[in-house]
Amino acid sequence: MNRIPTIFLAPLQIFTYLIYCIFVSSIFINKMDFIVQQQDALSKARTGIIKTDHGEIKTPIFMPVGTAGTVKAVHQHELKDDIKAQIILGNTYHLYLRPGLEIIEKAGGLHKFNGWDKPILTDSGGYQVYSLAGTRKIKEEGVKFQSHVDGSYHVFTPESVIDTQRIIGADIIMAFDECTPFPCEYDYAKKSMHMTHRWLERCVNRMAETKDKYNYSQVLFPIVQGSVYKDLRTQSAEKIASVNMPGNAIGGLSVGEPDEELYGMTELVCDILPKDKPRYLMGVGTPANILECIALGIDMFDCVMPTRNARHGTLFTKNGIINMKNVKWKDDFSPLDPDGTSYVDSFYSKAYVRHLFHTKEILGMQIGSIHNLAFYLWLVGEARNQIEKGTFTDWKNKMVPQLSQKL
Amino acid sequence: MNRIPTIFLAPLQIFTYLIYCIFVSSIFINKMDFIVQQQDALSKARTGIIKTDHGEIKTPIFMPVGTAGTVKAVHQHELKDDIKAQIILGNTYHLYLRPGLEIIEKAGGLHKFNGWDKPILTDSGGYQVYSLAGTRKIKEEGVKFQSHVDGSYHVFTPESVIDTQRIIGADIIMAFDECTPFPCEYDYAKKSMHMTHRWLERCVNRMAETKDKYNYSQVLFPIVQGSVYKDLRTQSAEKIASVNMPGNAIGGLSVGEPDEELYGMTELVCDILPKDKPRYLMGVGTPANILECIALGIDMFDCVMPTRNARHGTLFTKNGIINMKNVKWKDDFSPLDPDGTSYVDSFYSKAYVRHLFHTKEILGMQIGSIHNLAFYLWLVGEARNQIEKGTFTDWKNKMVPQLSQKL
Repeated sequence: MNRIPTIFLAPLQIFTYLIYCIFVSSIFINKMDFIVQQQDALSKARTGIIKTDHGEIKTPIFMPVGTAGTVKAVHQHELKDDIKAQIILGNTYHLYLRPGLEIIEKAGGLHKFNGWDKPILTDSGGYQVYSLAGTRKIKEEGVKFQSHVDGSYHVFTPESVIDTQRIIGADIIMAFDECTPFPCEYDYAKKSMHMTHRWLERCVNRMAETKDKYNYSQVLFPIVQGSVYKDLRTQSAEKIASVNMPGNAIGGLSVGEPDEELYGMTELVCDILPKDKPRYLMGVGTPANILECIALGIDMFDCVMPTRNARHGTLFTKNGIINMKNVKWKDDFSPLDPDGTSYVDSFYSKAYVRHLFHTKEILGMQIGSIHNLAFYLWLVGEARNQIEKGTFTDWKNKMVPQLSQKL
Repeated sequence: MNRIPTIFLAPLQIFTYLIYCIFVSSIFINKMDFIVQQQDALSKARTGIIKTDHGEIKTPIFMPVGTAGTVKAVHQHELKDDIKAQIILGNTYHLYLRPGLEIIEKAGGLHKFNGWDKPILTDSGGYQVYSLAGTRKIKEEGVKFQSHVDGSYHVFTPESVIDTQRIIGADIIMAFDECTPFPCEYDYAKKSMHMTHRWLERCVNRMAETKDKYNYSQVLFPIVQGSVYKDLRTQSAEKIASVNMPGNAIGGLSVGEPDEELYGMTELVCDILPKDKPRYLMGVGTPANILECIALGIDMFDCVMPTRNARHGTLFTKNGIINMKNVKWKDDFSPLDPDGTSYVDSFYSKAYVRHLFHTKEILGMQIGSIHNLAFYLWLVGEARNQIEKGTFTDWKNKMVPQLSQKL
């Protein structure tokens, strides 16, 4: 939209453009409802409900990452019944490579393919592609990259990733963006942000040109970029807000910047993004990060931390972080986490789980993953309760130092 | 007992020795009951019930292998509720090294440590120790070996492995034996068998000298050896039968010999071992092996095949063997195994599970392990049903060629 030099627009053109905007908006505006339920008095935290055709999501929410259509080491029924996940994330890059779009389409979409019948959000593949430093080339048209699996060459464009996510069958589709690294030169961040904005227009257009792939709504979330530069973040947030999609995301954070930058940028952007749309902070973070960012107005989170760290024996609890490999647990036969909500927390002992990690047994990774995800889901659920009770800020301030200590 | 030159025994000594034998027998004879329920008319197959202090085991039975106190990639509740395992196996060698006896004893035994409250059988560690070719030395006294974990030196003797299994808390303790390889020279097999017999006496004595470690019975199963030599197997089976333990095992098979040798030796030994004691064929085998050996009078089996092969994508079904990595399954969205008894069989599709193996996702190993174990437990359970109905032999003859075909 920025590319149209409005100053030269004749009245007819303005009219046509407005009609076009209304048309585009009307396609999406009712496809995913978000209701803000309660606003915290002492912070910008709020509770809400996102309504999708695969069910409701109570916010704030954490979305377990199911990279290749599987949340690693966790069964689908465990995700649903024990962990109480309400939405999971899939990675477009991974799914595009394997099993590939042909298989997913034949299956009738990812929900049918993996048996997860609640909402799915897919990233755009951008983040993964940029992680392939050295084997990818970014141009205005899109990104050429080499598969990490077999070295084959592929191109992602804003249009192709929309088509890809349509085929995957995501309920929430993410716009194609460039995720800048940290640190990032101002000039690069600015240039990159503008390209992300141009790509967004192409994504919006592609969404408008294409239909929901299966029998349910698919909506687009645009992504704010701008590295850690306030003016860029402001510009980007304004641009993203103006596109008027059913939800908005903040990208390019949690890439190595200090927590102060993370919180500063999140606050700045949250204050610009519309209140009546869910705000999704991508790739964040530690339990403390999540509570702090809920306080800033974030509604949705995803991160590989609970599952990846679990596979290496790091467990998150209300009282802090446990390194399960530590010899101190070798004869601690108390329950894994007496405060935990999952059955693994009461069924297995610390000593047994320590033994499993010590001997590199797969069951250790399974137990750790269930525990950590159940903990993350408990954390956002409890944040929701506290907001409802009006006690969120006190609770958060008590929890944050506790969550980060090493046990 | 063979070592006492009976010809020289004075009447008083004979009397004392008999009293001793009765005493030793009386300790064990009532500690584990076995009831033969039904004998097949056309084969030597039978059904029975083994009664232990951790519950009953309906035979024929397959015992999932839980090497280090965990059946790899399977939760305890899955083993019990979905797979319907009635007894699992633990490996003394692995448990002795990690977590070590101090931890297991402190926990109150392996059942308490890993949360499995049904019966546990432990091997003697012999098989594992012998597998450490080059890093172990076998002498009359016992075996000196190097840990595969840290290279430290350890000694297992018949006495120490009894003590170790007492501490692990096995319901069924295996005698310390030498498992000869295949092929094996006659002279070596003979010498080894005699040492195994002498070691058995030491195991029997140690069992008599020591008490049940926790509040339940622990019984000893001796092991028939003799490689593939009929005269040695006969001698060994007679010796093992004479020891009059509550159950008897056949070792040294399934080590690379042809199926004919496996079946020939099993038949020969089964005919000598007492009918009123369960017969356990160690480390066997394929689904077809299991049915053939049930027909020869075997009641108990264990094997790593269902779990190990599952982790590599090989699934066993009623209709044959599936290599889940095969490209032919890539768009087969039918249930993993429509005939399967586990929830994974109906919940997940072949295409999805193929994708999981293709991408080396842990969930593939989890699904495969549950499927294969549930299949093995179904197989022995169905064998039991068929014996009860008097249709076992017909059913077995129909199943065996089916089970072995590649799908």
